[in-house]
Amino acid sequence: MKTIEQWGIFEIALEGRPAGNPFTDVALNATFSYQHRQIQVDGFYDGGGVYKIRFMPDTQGEWRYVTHSNHGEFDAKQGEFLCVAPSASNHGPVRIHNAYHFRYADGTPYFPFGTTCYAWVHQGNAMEEQTLQTLKQTPFNKMRMCVFPKHYIYNANEPVYYPFERDDTGQSDFARFNPEFFRHFEQRVEQLRDLGIEADIIIFHPYDRWGYAEMTAEQDGRYLRYLVARLAAYRNVWWSLANEYDFLLEKKPLEQWDRFFQMLETCDPYQHLRSIHQGSLLYDHTKPWVTHVCIQHADVKRAKEWRTLYRKPVINDECQYEGNIPLPWGNITAQELVHRFWIMVANGCYAGHGETYLHPEDLLWWSKGGILRGESWQRIAFLRQVIESGPADGLTPLEDEWVWLHSVTGGFNGNYRLMYFGEHQPAGWSWGLPKDVAYTVEVIDTWKMTITPIDGIFKNAAEIPLPGKPYLAVRIRPVV
Amino acid sequence: MKTIEQWGIFEIALEGRPAGNPFTDVALNATFSYQHRQIQVDGFYDGGGVYKIRFMPDTQGEWRYVTHSNHGEFDAKQGEFLCVAPSASNHGPVRIHNAYHFRYADGTPYFPFGTTCYAWVHQGNAMEEQTLQTLKQTPFNKMRMCVFPKHYIYNANEPVYYPFERDDTGQSDFARFNPEFFRHFEQRVEQLRDLGIEADIIIFHPYDRWGYAEMTAEQDGRYLRYLVARLAAYRNVWWSLANEYDFLLEKKPLEQWDRFFQMLETCDPYQHLRSIHQGSLLYDHTKPWVTHVCIQHADVKRAKEWRTLYRKPVINDECQYEGNIPLPWGNITAQELVHRFWIMVANGCYAGHGETYLHPEDLLWWSKGGILRGESWQRIAFLRQVIESGPADGLTPLEDEWVWLHSVTGGFNGNYRLMYFGEHQPAGWSWGLPKDVAYTVEVIDTWKMTITPIDGIFKNAAEIPLPGKPYLAVRIRPVV
Repeated sequence: MKTIEQWGIFEIALEGRPAGNPFTDVALNATFSYQHRQIQVDGFYDGGGVYKIRFMPDTQGEWRYVTHSNHGEFDAKQGEFLCVAPSASNHGPVRIHNAYHFRYADGTPYFPFGTTCYAWVHQGNAMEEQTLQTLKQTPFNKMRMCVFPKHYIYNANEPVYYPFERDDTGQSDFARFNPEFFRHFEQRVEQLRDLGIEADIIIFHPYDRWGYAEMTAEQDGRYLRYLVARLAAYRNVWWSLANEYDFLLEKKPLEQWDRFFQMLETCDPYQHLRSIHQGSLLYDHTKPWVTHVCIQHADVKRAKEWRTLYRKPVINDECQYEGNIPLPWGNITAQELVHRFWIMVANGCYAGHGETYLHPEDLLWWSKGGILRGESWQRIAFLRQVIESGPADGLTPLEDEWVWLHSVTGGFNGNYRLMYFGEHQPAGWSWGLPKDVAYTVEVIDTWKMTITPIDGIFKNAAEIPLPGKPYLAVRIRPVV
Repeated sequence: MKTIEQWGIFEIALEGRPAGNPFTDVALNATFSYQHRQIQVDGFYDGGGVYKIRFMPDTQGEWRYVTHSNHGEFDAKQGEFLCVAPSASNHGPVRIHNAYHFRYADGTPYFPFGTTCYAWVHQGNAMEEQTLQTLKQTPFNKMRMCVFPKHYIYNANEPVYYPFERDDTGQSDFARFNPEFFRHFEQRVEQLRDLGIEADIIIFHPYDRWGYAEMTAEQDGRYLRYLVARLAAYRNVWWSLANEYDFLLEKKPLEQWDRFFQMLETCDPYQHLRSIHQGSLLYDHTKPWVTHVCIQHADVKRAKEWRTLYRKPVINDECQYEGNIPLPWGNITAQELVHRFWIMVANGCYAGHGETYLHPEDLLWWSKGGILRGESWQRIAFLRQVIESGPADGLTPLEDEWVWLHSVTGGFNGNYRLMYFGEHQPAGWSWGLPKDVAYTVEVIDTWKMTITPIDGIFKNAAEIPLPGKPYLAVRIRPVV
């Protein structure tokens, strides 16, 4: 019997050339069964007369399947496979954990430290491979990336592949996908997976000159279902319905975005994480189909407000980017981006990285990938280490009145504390300390990436001494 | 005929020892007349059998007066004086100008760059003289200062003078003022005046161990009227009803604060500027008796929101202090305070300085005065020079969408621009530039205090080049 690792991909391929449009005229799906449990999974046409069904089993043991199709040749095909233990680096898909945090399906903690290369899969093989090489060196475990190519400042180049069949004039046939495009896209998702990186897949976006932002609701829906049929079996997939969805509201009103969310809920057998990213008008992330808050906002000191408002994990994926382009969202210093990361993270939230340094050939990481030129990513790696060596269940913001008054930031879990002082330079600190328990204090230089213990064991101390310098954090851990 | 300079003080002194409490049982005031114009001015008891009436004439020419009293000896006293041109450094009291700004009564621009030494007049002669010496070297042209002594952290010392008569046990008689206290206080106000510094007089505050915060509404009102009778004739007086009034709300409900404002409107013949300072609950500064917004808030990027909300001049008198004490409001870096000043000021608002460095004898400038130990005050002096060499009518915030999105800050007046980039480091800039006019561009290093012209004259430039470094500002001036 064929074996597939848990959260791996089992694929069925069926050959045949039915009449009509193979993307729209053939209905194909399969029922996968484990004992009495049944899961319906849609198939898709992959070109060259080949139809496929992909499935990600979540339970070890013997699975069976049977296909269903309006094309008799594809109907009632049966088979089985054995789902075995996952390989060492396979922890399954990421799920919500502890209300405001994440972990992998196998229980391993996952703290998102993502970056953004919107159009990296459209830059040609050499640069795409370079991006993957860069990612190997960096801390990033999530990648925000668009399906569609991008038309925007610093983004004038044509993509290598197009998602739909095109005629000689460049007109797309939105009823016919280009399987080559999607195979290429999947390859990149798979390579990210093998680097331990979640693919935060942006389904729609407004930066367009090919007509993808102008599709009808029916065309949008078909595209969305095709994408889910192809990609949902990859365990590292997250769905980001759009980038700056509000810049598309004239074409796709709010109800349509709600419907897209409901379609994802309906089509995706694995319920991958779902969110949506805004320009200036926040989507109502309290809606039940949103699994976590994706936000674009420069004022990271509002982190706690977003937690309180939405009661879900908060990722500020775009708290502006390190760079020097003329646009304010793309020219903060590396120090400032690191500062914003610490504020989000010590508040029990998460942040996203991006880099926008001007380049003579417009090779900006934020969109095209390639190489990193900045100085924030190393500090984000350091912060990730600090967080991963902390409580597995994540941090909750301290609510002490002196902490929340738009000033210093402090997160806790039990008697663990991570307090970030930023532009503050207290020579001592009294608030939010553990009570009636012995603890150690370490001073973290967030820029120099050093961790320095303060001598002694503290217990019910009125105040802990601090160096009186800015951009420091303090880690407090109970003595066990 | 006696001569008094315009906005100087004309004083009437009357001697006598009527029966009863000389502070409460004698009613005394005077009517001052200039041609057909009449102004009522309250008198006050100054101890030693001397009653006084002080008057600040605002018009040059011949003035007459007649007194009124329930004590016959003081009634119907008449006299006259000649009001002459003011001396060179006397520009009169500060008034609101151009809706969001200030200027002196003689039309000279006044841009507030204030500091805070809450209890400096209660530190004894040596330190108080030292404070005045320090102020001579610094840019500050407004001083926030309390009438009452202060009981608070780092403030344990007894005052030299008490505002009310006290018995042997230290109990105050709130119906009997201590004229020596007020003469001392007036001397300090006068010395500030002679240094060109407005006295932002804080009438009530919650930091008390002597009972001043516990007075009845009647006692409060009597104190307020006595203060106005004594001090209103000093042209450099501003009224700040309270510091952190909201921490007194249990004792003095909101209606009482409204009433205090109305009393100031009623008693003060000169209508000095009036505001109130909050801890966390903002007073409604839209109320008609508030002349300008006094605010305590760390998030200076909300400056434009406060302008829009209140439609009055905005002074963020406490956007946290340079220092290193454990409390977040008193431990930001000098760099951060300078940064916050620039954000407020380039938004057409104003900010206040304070310094809270730990000291072995608790000599913190913010409360006691003395000497300055920090590094922000020099940069505030530099900023004041920049502002004073700019448009006399002050700045209005640019509303370009890229500027206001919680990012860079830009103020304008006609074709003048002052744009502050802060943590942003654009290599070029395109937004909010003047149209159809030739202009020069200078780069201002807000910390190093340098102003560097960019070569060339610009006109309808798509973009101006910038150094791509943080904490810079740009000054744009039309070529005339």
